[in-house]
Amino acid sequence: MYIDHDTIVAPATAVGGALSLVRLSGSRAIAIADSLFHGKKPLAACESHTAHFGSIYKGEKLIDEVVATLFRAPKSYTGDDTVELTCHGSAYIVGEVLRLAIGAGARMAEPGEFTRRAYLSGRLNLSEAEAVADLIASSSEAAHRLATQQMRGGYTTAIEHLRDELLQLTTLLELELDFSEEDVEFADRGRLAATMEAIGAEIEALRGSFALGNAIKEGVPVAIVGAPNVGKSTLLNQLVKEERAMVSDIAGTTRDVIEEQIVIDGVRFRILDTAGIRATEDRLEKMGIERTLRTIERARIVIRMIDAAEVAQKGIEPTTFTLREDQHLITLINKCDTVTALPTLPEGVIRLTARTGEGVESLQQALHRAVGLEALEEGTTIVSTARHYEALTTASEALKRALEGLQADLPTDLLSEDIRAVIIAIGSITARGEILPSEILNNLFGHFCIGK
Amino acid sequence: MYIDHDTIVAPATAVGGALSLVRLSGSRAIAIADSLFHGKKPLAACESHTAHFGSIYKGEKLIDEVVATLFRAPKSYTGDDTVELTCHGSAYIVGEVLRLAIGAGARMAEPGEFTRRAYLSGRLNLSEAEAVADLIASSSEAAHRLATQQMRGGYTTAIEHLRDELLQLTTLLELELDFSEEDVEFADRGRLAATMEAIGAEIEALRGSFALGNAIKEGVPVAIVGAPNVGKSTLLNQLVKEERAMVSDIAGTTRDVIEEQIVIDGVRFRILDTAGIRATEDRLEKMGIERTLRTIERARIVIRMIDAAEVAQKGIEPTTFTLREDQHLITLINKCDTVTALPTLPEGVIRLTARTGEGVESLQQALHRAVGLEALEEGTTIVSTARHYEALTTASEALKRALEGLQADLPTDLLSEDIRAVIIAIGSITARGEILPSEILNNLFGHFCIGK
Repeated sequence: MYIDHDTIVAPATAVGGALSLVRLSGSRAIAIADSLFHGKKPLAACESHTAHFGSIYKGEKLIDEVVATLFRAPKSYTGDDTVELTCHGSAYIVGEVLRLAIGAGARMAEPGEFTRRAYLSGRLNLSEAEAVADLIASSSEAAHRLATQQMRGGYTTAIEHLRDELLQLTTLLELELDFSEEDVEFADRGRLAATMEAIGAEIEALRGSFALGNAIKEGVPVAIVGAPNVGKSTLLNQLVKEERAMVSDIAGTTRDVIEEQIVIDGVRFRILDTAGIRATEDRLEKMGIERTLRTIERARIVIRMIDAAEVAQKGIEPTTFTLREDQHLITLINKCDTVTALPTLPEGVIRLTARTGEGVESLQQALHRAVGLEALEEGTTIVSTARHYEALTTASEALKRALEGLQADLPTDLLSEDIRAVIIAIGSITARGEILPSEILNNLFGHFCIGK
Repeated sequence: MYIDHDTIVAPATAVGGALSLVRLSGSRAIAIADSLFHGKKPLAACESHTAHFGSIYKGEKLIDEVVATLFRAPKSYTGDDTVELTCHGSAYIVGEVLRLAIGAGARMAEPGEFTRRAYLSGRLNLSEAEAVADLIASSSEAAHRLATQQMRGGYTTAIEHLRDELLQLTTLLELELDFSEEDVEFADRGRLAATMEAIGAEIEALRGSFALGNAIKEGVPVAIVGAPNVGKSTLLNQLVKEERAMVSDIAGTTRDVIEEQIVIDGVRFRILDTAGIRATEDRLEKMGIERTLRTIERARIVIRMIDAAEVAQKGIEPTTFTLREDQHLITLINKCDTVTALPTLPEGVIRLTARTGEGVESLQQALHRAVGLEALEEGTTIVSTARHYEALTTASEALKRALEGLQADLPTDLLSEDIRAVIIAIGSITARGEILPSEILNNLFGHFCIGK
């Protein structure tokens, strides 16, 4: 396996703080660092995992006083020699340090290239590498938990366990192929089918977890719908505690879908405000209503708001929209302060006075419950990466073919081929010890930030 | 001298990069870091200037995998024990690490508090500490050069040289006071006056350098003025190479002062676009013209634009505004492509076709020359900090009083008192080995960024 060891350089921190960290990694990292950094002694003479105060010069000109931290191969993030220069956080200084390093033979790293090297040198498997990007992007406790689970052993173990089971299956089948002229069956077909079905169920469970994992990672989309003037914008303002949405007494004020994000108990919700649903002749408003229906489709949780006065008069009428099985409906009666008596409400319906904030806490609890975090809390393996979901879908289809083949008593070699396809699909998730085509790697690491 | 050794913590890098650096410093920094960081062995058992891979846990929950770098007192930036944690750049992770450190007994650092401690522990003098903030803020080569000169010896040496000369003066004078009953004169009054005048000239030179130093640090303010429709906005667009200013053929389009920044050959210029100057009845436009005159006052360089057609007809008329001695005028003839013949122009007048960009390079060179960077290039000491300028002004006034006193043959003790006032004012610039009142330090370090 060929690894490109040329020396890459990139800022690893955002510009604008007190300090900036510039990272150099590759077989000439130490020599290049020594050409610009002047400490008590050359870094080449220093031990791994040591930090050194010194100055960076451009010719005679002092650029900065910095700390250089040395990580020698293979005990570094990438596996190559690595030098981290902690400079002052000026864009000018970082620019000069990068130019000096490039002048001395380094090249600018591509996004994710440090992690790509960590993967290529076998220090991380692919799903662990992907988790690093998720970790950096995580902005809520739940998203962070998903990323750390994936970065750490749990996730890899679950995926590799599946792969091991499949490998055992195929080993038995291929043993039969070796003895094909003798027409033996090492693998009992009944037990084979049972094992394959069990593996299929595990794959389906992982696939099923993606909706939750993706919602946690990207933020759980919540649509707030109801008749015009029912108080959606007021509720939104209560939830985000900011006056972002335009609130007005004129029916039909809210025409644009406004997205606000809130974190409730460690989960990020993306609140999608929508235009009110009602029969209307106004063309602009009609467009708003169409958009509402599209917003409902995108939501994982739909909050339906009804005016208390309407409920007092007509009770809770059926919804004008239908939800999928994976969507949750929360029914909210708003303006409860304006009516003296409400009929008995079904369990789970929340009474609210958005204007004062009364009932908002009950809503927050209901939102949190509707996400269904039990799986996360129980430590179940949750898929949150679209690439993994696609791999599992490919695996699922190949496994179905194999099972059908088994039932149709297809020849062992065809059976074995389908199971191989399942193994390859599952294996591509962690891709341990395998090198994926560079297009796949480019696509995967291209979404990383620079310097990681 | 009392130094507060409680342990402070702060992020030292901006949020949004691949990595984030959290800094802990104080007498319990290592113990607090060990309470959240779990590496191969406790940091308490590790040597100074070593880096350690490990994990940060919140109870059982993994927060991040990090590198902890240890700097033991007194060999750290602050002089206290310091631990730098390099985590992944997620706002959630940085928040958790800060909360854990605070839970373990650290407190959030105030802006500049790390550098304040470096000053209080005698590792930096005050002007060097201020230079650190300038260095972080520097966004052009010239500003960076000023900051490094101030951070490094040159500036301190110049200031302390002045102070030493004054100390010699006062020593002689105070010797006379000790022998006052004998009416001796150790200090020859003629030579005393000459020395004081020489010192006064040095102080004036330093004060005089502040206009340049400040312009380099904050960006050199440039006003572009001229009649409506002469092409100011087009020129501005050429200079910033972006279509920011509103360009239109309607006279009087540009009403707001728009500020654009450009760096020419390492110097940052703040281009102040202005409303056109002309006689007008329009109230709004009148306000614009008043603003133009105020903008000219703020500028260090004024670019006067004249239409080539006007020059062809009337030559270059006198300006309608007057400039101070410290302001530079650059005269630009625009739309040179629209006239076939121009009268012979005085030296220094630049011919431009803003629409095509022809002549823009000559303008850039003229701008650079007008800044007067020779002093910077020759390594002259340049004052760029308002606090230093104020101290030098105080010193200058006290020195004048002393000289007047000398000429009026005032008693030696009054003379000596004025010279002491000069010494105190000059000494406050570097404040080496002295502790300034905490209001002054609060004010000074309060302008730093957090984490530095």
